[in-house]
Amino acid sequence: MRAVYPGSFDPATNGHLDIIERSAKLVDHLVVAVLNNINKTSLLTVEERVELLKKITSHLSNVEIKSFSGLLVDFMVKEKSTIIIRGFRAMLDYEYEMQMAQVNRQLYEEVETILLVTKYEYSYLSSSMVKEVAKFGGDVSQFLPKEVSDFLINKFKKSEEKQ
Amino acid sequence: MRAVYPGSFDPATNGHLDIIERSAKLVDHLVVAVLNNINKTSLLTVEERVELLKKITSHLSNVEIKSFSGLLVDFMVKEKSTIIIRGFRAMLDYEYEMQMAQVNRQLYEEVETILLVTKYEYSYLSSSMVKEVAKFGGDVSQFLPKEVSDFLINKFKKSEEKQ
Amino acid sequence: MRAVYPGSFDPATNGHLDIIERSAKLVDHLVVAVLNNINKTSLLTVEERVELLKKITSHLSNVEIKSFSGLLVDFMVKEKSTIIIRGFRAMLDYEYEMQMAQVNRQLYEEVETILLVTKYEYSYLSSSMVKEVAKFGGDVSQFLPKEVSDFLINKFKKSEEKQ
Amino acid sequence: MRAVYPGSFDPATNGHLDIIERSAKLVDHLVVAVLNNINKTSLLTVEERVELLKKITSHLSNVEIKSFSGLLVDFMVKEKSTIIIRGFRAMLDYEYEMQMAQVNRQLYEEVETILLVTKYEYSYLSSSMVKEVAKFGGDVSQFLPKEVSDFLINKFKKSEEKQ
Amino acid sequence: MRAVYPGSFDPATNGHLDIIERSAKLVDHLVVAVLNNINKTSLLTVEERVELLKKITSHLSNVEIKSFSGLLVDFMVKEKSTIIIRGFRAMLDYEYEMQMAQVNRQLYEEVETILLVTKYEYSYLSSSMVKEVAKFGGDVSQFLPKEVSDFLINKFKKSEEKQ
Amino acid sequence: MRAVYPGSFDPATNGHLDIIERSAKLVDHLVVAVLNNINKTSLLTVEERVELLKKITSHLSNVEIKSFSGLLVDFMVKEKSTIIIRGFRAMLDYEYEMQMAQVNRQLYEEVETILLVTKYEYSYLSSSMVKEVAKFGGDVSQFLPKEVSDFLINKFKKSEEKQ
Repeated sequence: MRAVYPGSFDPATNGHLDIIERSAKLVDHLVVAVLNNINKTSLLTVEERVELLKKITSHLSNVEIKSFSGLLVDFMVKEKSTIIIRGFRAMLDYEYEMQMAQVNRQLYEEVETILLVTKYEYSYLSSSMVKEVAKFGGDVSQFLPKEVSDFLINKFKKSEEKQ
Repeated sequence: MRAVYPGSFDPATNGHLDIIERSAKLVDHLVVAVLNNINKTSLLTVEERVELLKKITSHLSNVEIKSFSGLLVDFMVKEKSTIIIRGFRAMLDYEYEMQMAQVNRQLYEEVETILLVTKYEYSYLSSSMVKEVAKFGGDVSQFLPKEVSDFLINKFKKSEEKQ
Repeated sequence: MRAVYPGSFDPATNGHLDIIERSAKLVDHLVVAVLNNINKTSLLTVEERVELLKKITSHLSNVEIKSFSGLLVDFMVKEKSTIIIRGFRAMLDYEYEMQMAQVNRQLYEEVETILLVTKYEYSYLSSSMVKEVAKFGGDVSQFLPKEVSDFLINKFKKSEEKQ
Repeated sequence: MRAVYPGSFDPATNGHLDIIERSAKLVDHLVVAVLNNINKTSLLTVEERVELLKKITSHLSNVEIKSFSGLLVDFMVKEKSTIIIRGFRAMLDYEYEMQMAQVNRQLYEEVETILLVTKYEYSYLSSSMVKEVAKFGGDVSQFLPKEVSDFLINKFKKSEEKQ
Repeated sequence: MRAVYPGSFDPATNGHLDIIERSAKLVDHLVVAVLNNINKTSLLTVEERVELLKKITSHLSNVEIKSFSGLLVDFMVKEKSTIIIRGFRAMLDYEYEMQMAQVNRQLYEEVETILLVTKYEYSYLSSSMVKEVAKFGGDVSQFLPKEVSDFLINKFKKSEEKQ
Repeated sequence: MRAVYPGSFDPATNGHLDIIERSAKLVDHLVVAVLNNINKTSLLTVEERVELLKKITSHLSNVEIKSFSGLLVDFMVKEKSTIIIRGFRAMLDYEYEMQMAQVNRQLYEEVETILLVTKYEYSYLSSSMVKEVAKFGGDVSQFLPKEVSDFLINKFKKSEEKQ
């Protein structure tokens, strides 16, 4: 069984890593699919996000990192997978995840969306919150895998030196 | 009894058409009011949206399509109507619709907001989702009245030819 | 146009009366339908509830009070009405009202449910809360039409005298 | 991979059957586990519920029907399964499902809860709603698999004859 | 400043204790008020609940344990306190806590309700869930202060010996 | 006890003023902290917002108005305060307020967030709604303290004269 875990991962948090580790136990092969959303301005480039995900999942032999643009269902077809995995964190995720699951099923009937409940210690965690805290010099190392945290600190340091 | 069904209709979906058809049975005269929101960038011009709504409601003799800008309550006064109709789709509509109903009542005491529950088959449907799917070449014909779907396909084809 | 406003009204509150008054302006004829729910223990008998509703709506010439048991849609057929009116108070009403609207439409396709947004000053008000407060001798006169409040005070006084 | 789909199934609806069919495609072996809840009064006996589930899943070779009482996690251990499957219907399911997923993980760390999003056409469907409609003679055949519907009609007919 | 933290505490959990400890830092004097709700069947008697709360708060010099029946606002007047403290755990608490805060303000204008956000590690925790798990022999020691856990185990052991 | 009430206050509404007045009764000293959010475009400058807040709180001797940028927890440390006060208006506030409370606790363990339930008459009120209504010439005086309302009317008049 092949499954796809799509997201922006800008950057990947401890919550994302937890979903990846748990999903990797459930399926034979997991593709973590980084959305290359050209409309949204992101902190990290797609290449940086893919690279960081590769580092933090290097201990998981059945996990592969890819990027995609366009419709998720088109990517699913290309990957010969019908299973989408999503973390389910909190109530505001609810409407969006429900809508996406219905739309994706409508566009590609065979597709199945699996929601995994986020562990409570990550339930308040989001990439955008981490970026907000990091922007003002707050300590985000407790929210992120070490490789991601180191990368971010480095990136913000360089951008300060430039100014 | 005259009622007003306001919205952006960018574009009108099967869900919007369902609310129009059901409202047309409830009231003597229904004005579908297309909001000309100069702040938000829209896919279709107000004229295109009015035109498409006219086409898909041509079988409904007591429905009229108009556009408006500014405050809805000012438009209500001009239209000599005190009844606002809104589709009620899902939980995230809830807060917004409740707030708008309270504010409009506060601004114009006689105004009454009627919420019609969206049919479950349209409950996941939104104009912005349709635009997102259409942008990446997904098939949106199942979400839209035929006239709207044809128009969109044509529009995207032309914009591609230009590039 | 004939509409039905169903409920338990055990007892009718200021919030119920507000919905009745606003509905009476929207439709030609309004039937307030008191549910005779034999499974739930109620504070007031169906007869008492009908009687109190008659008193507090005596100023509304197009409002009629009836009781019903069984399925609401069967009552709708008997009353030759296809419009159900419900007050929409708060989020916990949401799921129940949405489910009921879908089920009633499924059982009787022509039926239409209209939700009216409760005025904010009644948004926290429920019959069960009023009963809870009244049971412990709290002053409930501010939550209830005068006739209902007087009746309740009298009823609780008598039940105390008996003990 | 073995998974367990626990519930009351009093009675099993089209929504339950949909989740069973979709789960059976995701896992090697699925145990549908009927909760024998001695505290709650049920319409059908555990035996009747197990029997009906066997009938409506007879076309699914990797589905097994069992009953259990006590803690779900104890049943999971006995069944040598760590995957719980739950249908996720609507917002009021949200809190309960999230709480249960956290508690079960707390009681048995290896356990993983998978939420499958209910198809929109079943999103308003619940066993208790079906029972309420059936009690008053409403037509519930559209909500239920044929075998379940026939059984219920028969059961209510017999109970009427006795009276 | 004197505050009251009302609840059923049947039994007190780690989540309750956390709210008590945090409240005790915010106010001069805290009364933990055990509701003697004669309508609801409880696992522990009011005396047992008061006794356990006294044990687990013995390290907090400004905390007092009392029981009350009837309206909370009447108890507030008697205690000469206008501040109610409530733990705010999750979305389903939302409506109830909002309604109660409005009603209590309506009944006693000076009263102020303070909501403290439950720590995420206790966000899934409720007395009723603990009772459900304990009833079937599950290990509840991780959800409860040691004194409460010991008391419950003892209580269930005795009730089994009697049978 | 010193507390901080942070927000954008663009502009301060009757709802904000109500929370300030109620908070001022609960604590010894209250700092109303205007967020200088350089990323968001605001209607009023930080200086204008601070000035208006000073005017409308001039009757409250223990209230001080300050502005801050960066992380709230850094401001809390500088102000030697560990108590954050937030108004809790409606369900969509819920997720955000819960997340912020958890994050702030994570960044600064001693910090405590107190949620005060907004009075129902202000429950639909938000700065962004007020701005939307004001932009189209609607009467916002009923939503705002007089000083704020006068200032806004003046500001919009001037900007029209310029055009």
